[in-house]
Amino acid sequence: MPLITIEVADTVPVAKRLAYADAVNEGLAEGLGMDIDDRFQVIHPLPANHLIADPHYLGGDRRNVLFVRILMVKMYDDATKAKAFDAVARRLEALGVRPDDVFIAVTENTVKDWYPGARGARSAPTDV
Amino acid sequence: MPLITIEVADTVPVAKRLAYADAVNEGLAEGLGMDIDDRFQVIHPLPANHLIADPHYLGGDRRNVLFVRILMVKMYDDATKAKAFDAVARRLEALGVRPDDVFIAVTENTVKDWYPGARGARSAPTDV
Amino acid sequence: MPLITIEVADTVPVAKRLAYADAVNEGLAEGLGMDIDDRFQVIHPLPANHLIADPHYLGGDRRNVLFVRILMVKMYDDATKAKAFDAVARRLEALGVRPDDVFIAVTENTVKDWYPGARGARSAPTDV
Repeated sequence: MPLITIEVADTVPVAKRLAYADAVNEGLAEGLGMDIDDRFQVIHPLPANHLIADPHYLGGDRRNVLFVRILMVKMYDDATKAKAFDAVARRLEALGVRPDDVFIAVTENTVKDWYPGARGARSAPTDV
Repeated sequence: MPLITIEVADTVPVAKRLAYADAVNEGLAEGLGMDIDDRFQVIHPLPANHLIADPHYLGGDRRNVLFVRILMVKMYDDATKAKAFDAVARRLEALGVRPDDVFIAVTENTVKDWYPGARGARSAPTDV
Repeated sequence: MPLITIEVADTVPVAKRLAYADAVNEGLAEGLGMDIDDRFQVIHPLPANHLIADPHYLGGDRRNVLFVRILMVKMYDDATKAKAFDAVARRLEALGVRPDDVFIAVTENTVKDWYPGARGARSAPTDV
């Protein structure tokens, strides 16, 4: 039950924002082995100059960064996370987002930290 | 000192958004035993199609999901969290939000991870 | 590689919002000993009444709260965090933000939870 936050420049057309969200979902399904229907995402369109990233820190060449935040249950090892990051970046690249412009950050919680709606809560797994 | 984030469709009138925030605060006070004045909330109104949730994953029937994120100190057990989720959903339901349309995610930190303003910081508890 | 989120009233002019972001970056560089180029920030302008804070909880006198969220690798001790909070508040005060109106919350993750762009990822540190 990852919850994805996408912060994107409001100069990006709505259809493209939604395509980015599709790509992130598909990348996580591929990289994490996550169910493609396990999809909860919020897109925040923001003024381009409100998305701030150092252009070269750690060797990147950043120009118009797309921020992707992933809140998910602590259950994936580092290699799986890296695979997911690469899968997300590759799918975004197919939509024209330069891999240097993808910025992903993960935060982790536990299975008990989620309430996915009343009926979802009743059928949610009680452990991982 | 929970910090609450509410992501809501911008088609929901402002007065209703603020009522939702009241309801979330009251639900947390009830469910967590939190002080009702321990209130720090940020509401993000977003285009409805920027709030994405699978309609049926885990058995829910989601239509217009309201996202509620809770950042709070790690100090509550699973049963207390579940009680808080139910209290929030029940109070939102009284305002017309279907329980299936409530999505809550918790992230935890420590007491030392908060700065609640200069004077607040001076009087903040040093441990839980 | 902290990721900073600044939630600010949309009545604050854009130039001032960007100055706040500068101040937060400089405060973290000072307080955490962070590289000044290690800068990744997202500013969310929101209606003033969507930024909700109890005016007096814990002894503060809050009026127009600026919310600053810090997602960073778990590697700083409590004293360093407190020093960073003070440095951020002091620099914001120089821009006219009352220290009581600064609200900071930290969330922590690990080095492996970041993807700072394709080339950045390749040169990212593998441990702290």
